[in-house]
Formats: sequence, C-alpha cells, structure tokens
Amino acid sequence: MVVELSFLKQIAGVAAEQTLSRFRNISLIDNKYQTGFDPVTEADREAEKAIRRLINAAFPDHGILGEEFGGENLDHSHVWIIDPIDGTRAFISGIPVWGTLAGLTIDGDAVAGLMAQPFTNELFMCDGEASWYEGPGGTRRLETRKTHELSEATLFTTTPALFKDEKRAAYDRVEQSVRLARYGTDCYAYAMLAAGFVDLVIETGLHPYDIVALVPIIEKAGGVITTWDDGPAEKAGSIIAAATPELHARALELLNR
Amino acid sequence: MVVELSFLKQIAGVAAEQTLSRFRNISLIDNKYQTGFDPVTEADREAEKAIRRLINAAFPDHGILGEEFGGENLDHSHVWIIDPIDGTRAFISGIPVWGTLAGLTIDGDAVAGLMAQPFTNELFMCDGEASWYEGPGGTRRLETRKTHELSEATLFTTTPALFKDEKRAAYDRVEQSVRLARYGTDCYAYAMLAAGFVDLVIETGLHPYDIVALVPIIEKAGGVITTWDDGPAEKAGSIIAAATPELHARALELLNR
Repeated sequence: MVVELSFLKQIAGVAAEQTLSRFRNISLIDNKYQTGFDPVTEADREAEKAIRRLINAAFPDHGILGEEFGGENLDHSHVWIIDPIDGTRAFISGIPVWGTLAGLTIDGDAVAGLMAQPFTNELFMCDGEASWYEGPGGTRRLETRKTHELSEATLFTTTPALFKDEKRAAYDRVEQSVRLARYGTDCYAYAMLAAGFVDLVIETGLHPYDIVALVPIIEKAGGVITTWDDGPAEKAGSIIAAATPELHARALELLNR
Repeated sequence: MVVELSFLKQIAGVAAEQTLSRFRNISLIDNKYQTGFDPVTEADREAEKAIRRLINAAFPDHGILGEEFGGENLDHSHVWIIDPIDGTRAFISGIPVWGTLAGLTIDGDAVAGLMAQPFTNELFMCDGEASWYEGPGGTRRLETRKTHELSEATLFTTTPALFKDEKRAAYDRVEQSVRLARYGTDCYAYAMLAAGFVDLVIETGLHPYDIVALVPIIEKAGGVITTWDDGPAEKAGSIIAAATPELHARALELLNR
C-alpha cells in the first residue's frame, strides 16, 4: 500500500474540524454582512493549513499543491493535491454534497486519495491498492456497478451550463443516450460512482485539485476516469468517469463523434 | 398547536425503518435484475403502509392521500397528504437529498408538516405554530434568510429540463437574475429554504403530495410559497417558494412578465 488509511482519516479529521464548524453556521453567515468575514473562504483556508501541517509533519519530503495556498516542493516525486472544500456552492447552500479532497501523486500519477463528507460522516478512500467506504452502515470495499450500456446508465454532472458550444453538443449526445441524468453534486457524484450507484460523471473546466484525489478511488473500485481525449485524468480539464471500461468506451465515442 | 412534534417524529421513525434499510443496499439492487424486485418501489410502498397505520391508529377520523395507495376519507376535514420517498431518482443514485413528506390539511389548507431525511438524520417540521429543525448539531427554530433582492438570491430547481416552452423562458428570466442557481435537490431544497440557506425554489409539474407537507414548514419559517399565478400552493402544479414576501413578489413578477 502507498499510504495508510489511518493517515487519510487523519486528513479528514483535521479538515472536518475547520469545515463542519462553519457549515450552516447561521451566526457566521449573518456576521459576514457586517464584517466582510466569509465562512466558506475561512473554512477553505483553515482546512488547507491544517492538512498541510499534517502532511509536512508526516512526510517532510512530499510536495503539496493546494487550491488556496498554491505549490511547495512540486519537483519532488511525491506530491499531494488538495482541495479542502470541493463544491463551495453546495457548501454555502447547505447541501451536503461538497467534500474534502486530498490525492497523492507519484511522478504525476494519482495513486491514493480521499474524499471526505463530514456532515454525512462518510469517507471514500484509496490506499493505493483498494478503495474503501466508511460511513453510516459500516466499512466496505468500494466497487463500481457493472453497467456496460448507455441505455442502462445514470449520468451526473454539476450543471449542463458548464458546457459551451461543441462541448455542450457532445455532452447532450451522451445525456440523450442514458437512462437517467441528474445534476448538482460536485465531488459526491464521483464518490457515488465508485460506490456503485452512479455510472457516468462528465464535467469540464476542472482543475487538478478538483479531480486528482478521486482518480485512484474510482480506478481501484473498477471504474475508468480520463480526459475527453482519453488522456490521463490527472491533466484535469474535461473529464469523463465511467463505472466500466465498456461504458467508458461507449460514452467517449459519443463525446468525440 | 395542530399536531404534536412527537407524532411527526413517529411518522419519520416508521418511514425510516422501511426506507433506510433499502437505501444504497447493494444486495437488494443486484438482486433486482434477477427477481424484478425493485427496492425503491418496495421502500415507497412499505413506508406508506407504515405511515397510514400510524395515522389510522392515532387519528381514525383523518383522511389520507398518499402517492402509492391513493385516497381514503378525503371528504373529512383533516386529511394527511404523504409521499414516503420524494426524490426517488436521488434515492436510486445514492444521493441523500430525498425525503419522507407528510403534511396535514384542514379543509384543504396545509397547516402542519414533516420533511425527514433519515440518512443525514434530519427532521424539518411544522406543528402548526412554528417550524423546527432537528439534526446533527441540535434543535432550533427554522427561519428563512432575509433576502429581498434577486441579485442576492440562491435559486434551486430539480432540473431546468422540467420547464417547457413559455415556462422555460419564464424560469430562465429568474435564473438569469439571481446570484447563484443550482440543480438536483428535490424536497431538500425547500428544507434548506426554510433553514435560511436557499432563497428561491421554482418547479413545475408537482403533485399535491410533492409539496403540501413543505408549505407550512416554509410559511412558519417566514417564507412564502404559492403557485406561479399566486394561488395556494396546495393546488400544486407550478410552484414558487421564496425566503421573503419581497423576494417572492420580485420573482413572481419576472415569471409572469
């Protein structure tokens, strides 16, 4: 294994202390208008600081790239890519589909990762060998659903408004071919794909910190995640995640028709 | 008060026994393909049966209208309107934004109601006098946010694909005027409106069992909920919920421009 699950859980723990206390905190939100203090930004920054302290202490030779504070030691072989709150719009709307993302890359390849949703008390983790769920109802291996056909697939995207012009036409071709399309889930949709309840997630305009942590979780659960031109998902940008290689191939063909 | 909170919690309890055991239940879902057994339908039907038993025992002179089993004693003054799983698409996709809805009408007016999300362990309730939240973090009065301007509002709808032709144009006018629009939340968006994190919910094609339970929860939290022609929301169909009367008036004017 590349990283202990216990270390991923420590990351989730220190992040949750900073995020959960500010999630749906009416007094903080009301206060914002008087003080300019923004609870989401504050949660994002404090959580990233806490995660960086943890990684620096445990792995001083690892680099870190974070959404809030940029890069350090990015020329090292091991680099963590972190987004303390993926889905800030869900966060400010009170919807618990945001998550804390932390992924470990070795020489640019995503090999281990964490998606943590502290309000529902759920962890989706990959230690480099397997993907795991911990949450209400217990602990189990994450495994994607064995969906091969678009006509049987459930597709998620955060909003179709992400896609412009040709990209919108490409996305619409896939949406029109699936059994069910749903919107509005940020990183939670990728977690549900790894867990076997969603078959496709298609998005665009992603940064590496939006996606790297999710790559190993999906891959070690049996799924496939790439860019729309079938390149490594670590490049980010336009991303397609699928429950099976067969479904991935069919959706990719439609996207690029 | 019209109904005890303890009774609304009993409804949530008997429904949760039937729904939660079938939510994300991989073995049941896998089994479906061999047996034709559908865990969502089963959860819906069993939860409605349990809720009906509870109401019949406690209030034998109350009528009941449910999504699954239709109406009984609908000519009585007190009628419960129930939807055991509002948001079945979210349910089958593993996303915890579905809910159990039960609303009490007196002579057609919604006066008390419950929205329960058992996976997140949250209750949104109105006893006829006030609206209450119970969940992680404790119990508190529900109160809408004091948003008056569209330009400051967060708007939710399950999917813009709900709206066709003129309705789509009307919805789009509002969406283009707000600060933030998000999709994909079913009854959870109305609950977040009552809780002060969302300012507008606009939908169409709703049945009474989709909305009646939410009406008193929103109204006693300070919000306004009506049809698009400013009629009583109990009629269902095209619905607009707003955090304040001022915001409701502004959004309604845009919808009907």
